[in-house]
Amino acid sequence: MTNTIPSPELIARFAAIVGDRNALTDQAEIAPYLVESRGLYTGNTPLVLKPGSVDDVSQILKLASETGAAIVPQGGNTGHVAGQIPRTGAADIVLSLERLNRIRDIDPVGNVIVADAGCILADIRTAAEAHDRLFPLSLGSEGSCRIGGNLSTNAGGTAVLAYGNMRQLCLGLEVVLPTGEIWDGLRRLKKDNTGYDLRDLFIGAEGTLGVITGAVLKLFPKPLGHQVAFAGLKSVADALALFDKASSLCGPALTGFELMPRLGVEFTAKHIAGVRDPLDTAHAWYALIDISTCDSAETAERMMSELLETEISGGLVENAVVAANDAQRKSLWHMRESMSPAQRPEGGSIKHDVSVPVSSIPAFMAQADAAVMAAIPGARICAFGHMGDGNIHYNISQPIGADRQAFLSRWREMNAIVHGIVMNYNGSISAEHGIGQLKRDELAEVRSPIEVDLMQRIKHAFDPAGIMNPDKVLKA
Amino acid sequence: MTNTIPSPELIARFAAIVGDRNALTDQAEIAPYLVESRGLYTGNTPLVLKPGSVDDVSQILKLASETGAAIVPQGGNTGHVAGQIPRTGAADIVLSLERLNRIRDIDPVGNVIVADAGCILADIRTAAEAHDRLFPLSLGSEGSCRIGGNLSTNAGGTAVLAYGNMRQLCLGLEVVLPTGEIWDGLRRLKKDNTGYDLRDLFIGAEGTLGVITGAVLKLFPKPLGHQVAFAGLKSVADALALFDKASSLCGPALTGFELMPRLGVEFTAKHIAGVRDPLDTAHAWYALIDISTCDSAETAERMMSELLETEISGGLVENAVVAANDAQRKSLWHMRESMSPAQRPEGGSIKHDVSVPVSSIPAFMAQADAAVMAAIPGARICAFGHMGDGNIHYNISQPIGADRQAFLSRWREMNAIVHGIVMNYNGSISAEHGIGQLKRDELAEVRSPIEVDLMQRIKHAFDPAGIMNPDKVLKA
Repeated sequence: MTNTIPSPELIARFAAIVGDRNALTDQAEIAPYLVESRGLYTGNTPLVLKPGSVDDVSQILKLASETGAAIVPQGGNTGHVAGQIPRTGAADIVLSLERLNRIRDIDPVGNVIVADAGCILADIRTAAEAHDRLFPLSLGSEGSCRIGGNLSTNAGGTAVLAYGNMRQLCLGLEVVLPTGEIWDGLRRLKKDNTGYDLRDLFIGAEGTLGVITGAVLKLFPKPLGHQVAFAGLKSVADALALFDKASSLCGPALTGFELMPRLGVEFTAKHIAGVRDPLDTAHAWYALIDISTCDSAETAERMMSELLETEISGGLVENAVVAANDAQRKSLWHMRESMSPAQRPEGGSIKHDVSVPVSSIPAFMAQADAAVMAAIPGARICAFGHMGDGNIHYNISQPIGADRQAFLSRWREMNAIVHGIVMNYNGSISAEHGIGQLKRDELAEVRSPIEVDLMQRIKHAFDPAGIMNPDKVLKA
Repeated sequence: MTNTIPSPELIARFAAIVGDRNALTDQAEIAPYLVESRGLYTGNTPLVLKPGSVDDVSQILKLASETGAAIVPQGGNTGHVAGQIPRTGAADIVLSLERLNRIRDIDPVGNVIVADAGCILADIRTAAEAHDRLFPLSLGSEGSCRIGGNLSTNAGGTAVLAYGNMRQLCLGLEVVLPTGEIWDGLRRLKKDNTGYDLRDLFIGAEGTLGVITGAVLKLFPKPLGHQVAFAGLKSVADALALFDKASSLCGPALTGFELMPRLGVEFTAKHIAGVRDPLDTAHAWYALIDISTCDSAETAERMMSELLETEISGGLVENAVVAANDAQRKSLWHMRESMSPAQRPEGGSIKHDVSVPVSSIPAFMAQADAAVMAAIPGARICAFGHMGDGNIHYNISQPIGADRQAFLSRWREMNAIVHGIVMNYNGSISAEHGIGQLKRDELAEVRSPIEVDLMQRIKHAFDPAGIMNPDKVLKA
């Protein structure tokens, strides 16, 4: 399906909905909306619209469906797969949710917050905190990413192990459909079995089925106890064994279990200000263990010391350090979160955001390492991530002294190798970042024809005019 | 859309797929498949098919789509809304999943079990237990209900507060589509953001979009500590306040918080063998508090005593008893689970399975009580349930001495009153039992036209021939 290229008259009709001040046509003002954070994609657009109400969004989509103009919803523009970037060479209109940034309600007893889609994630966390509650979604980009984008990509981050990803954190949605109709699904219910689960269809759809304008999000009691440890380990298999011990001991109090390789620790110690290796000796692998408890600080302390004492004396953990205060806890997490930026000064990095069944991580890593090293001798594999979720950011830094561009030109080739192994384990080629433009063609390769066909049927049923974020996730 | 009435020839073609032994045409053999547990609906069918493989199911649905014959999937036949019962006066074919009852795999390190849809829930729980793991879904009917039905109705039960309902307990599905095509979505991934969430569309669809034949379910570490208390309270508002205190103190260790009225305790003590009121004095309301901890038995004990000591001395809890051993814990839960059967000897009971936002429960209950008592003076309201989930089984026993049939004839009228108040709180008229036939027409009244329309579009996209459990959830 081909979308209309908006004429000056049509652009004026769209602009009239939001008012000229909120309709950008100046290419200098538009520029920041066209490039994503990693610089892999640059799109173009004749128009950026900044609606100020749900009704504005409704009128815009109605006009788009009537005229066939394509609409690309955008939140904080922090996505990694270019789902929020207009197509190159088309004339998609960008719909920025940034002005819809009001917290509509907060109910600490009911443990819910109701927010506009344009609210910044950090603002939601702060609002919860002010009511002695926790909103657990936490991401590197939380100071600029927006709730609508978090929902549309089913964002994950560092607290998924205990709290789930965005899908599990959302009770209700308000969505403007491609036709302009508004679905008010802003329910605050923990249980509701009345028909098909529309909410979860819009979550993770990357703006291809409609525009999320508001959401009911879950809040949680704020834990009193928080312990973070950094443990040196011999192998990935030992990390898996330690995860099994930790999750059996702590149950839902295990709020994080992150895997890091020696190389990643070296990179962060070398390149990130303030980071140093907290252990005296080198270890092949490391686990960051995060435990939170609601009843008391002592319960978390007791769990952490029991875990580490048992596993150090049993030989599973080679050495470990426990953060003594909040500053040290932040510092250990900072090292983990700096692992990707710390690769930059080491040259090009080919990235993968994959997941496999948790118990398959050691086998997957061994097989992927062998295949990558065979293809690019000297490649420096820096695979780290949310081990407890089975989600590894399998990144490959270029060989020392290699040509950056020549290395990066092998991105697709490396993807094919790594994703091929992921698929042998019935894994996912996008554990948390989504499909967008970057992985769209690959999606059709790794998922069965019937699965892609079911998605296409849903797309056509919801967006018959083909105006919602076309060519993202699925080929239009 | 009208379905084909199967001719003898067509019945023979269906029977040939599963073999004559597994194709029931004798009405005496068929009878148990036609009535649901509460006896509100009796359907009819010329044929019950018992496929022995996923391929059998595929061939059956393919033939049904080609010929227009309607198929009604059935698991353990324990559903409360007649979703599993063939229509009265039509000639729907019943597809029983009972022979597909194999546990395909269990991975205790990966914390997953893979099972056929026809597995009985209790068998899954036992298999998990044998590997020192917990499968948390627990229902009164767990000895006969089957996993496919649990998934298709997004079953809830007593452990939803901490573990979620069936939707949260499922990682992957295998589904035979109405066309006979098989979707293999049996993934074991905790994180997977690759396209639309098909899994959650089939979960809770009550067999109207396809037949679930297999599932990957989550397992959890088995808690070491388990405490159950029974607390006497002045009011529903106090129960809400106590829930807030308990969930702040225990976080995810609070595994159950059930509300019960004095009347319900009296009914169970009077009618259920072995049940007695565990407290010496009468209280207007009661909470059953269930706490589970993984690290040690002591942590649960400490939490429970801290909660009760604080709230008894603070005056929120009037009196409380803590179960001293597993037998006593079971006995307290038995009282709660007997609350519905205990109403039977008291005459007719008009039932509601509703949810509202947790913080609205006291206001909802007060308003509903006033409206019901105004409509039927002398009615005995026995509203109990999963307070922590906002889910109340708002049941109404007939006035003493009233005519049972005359009282029950006011079922729809009472539903309209109670559900009307539920909708004022943006609640749900079916928190855990689903829609089926019982609430189908009401669904169209309580949900917006756009919401029902989106469901219809999905239905038509997945089942163009209209053969999958027609007239359930949505009008065909």
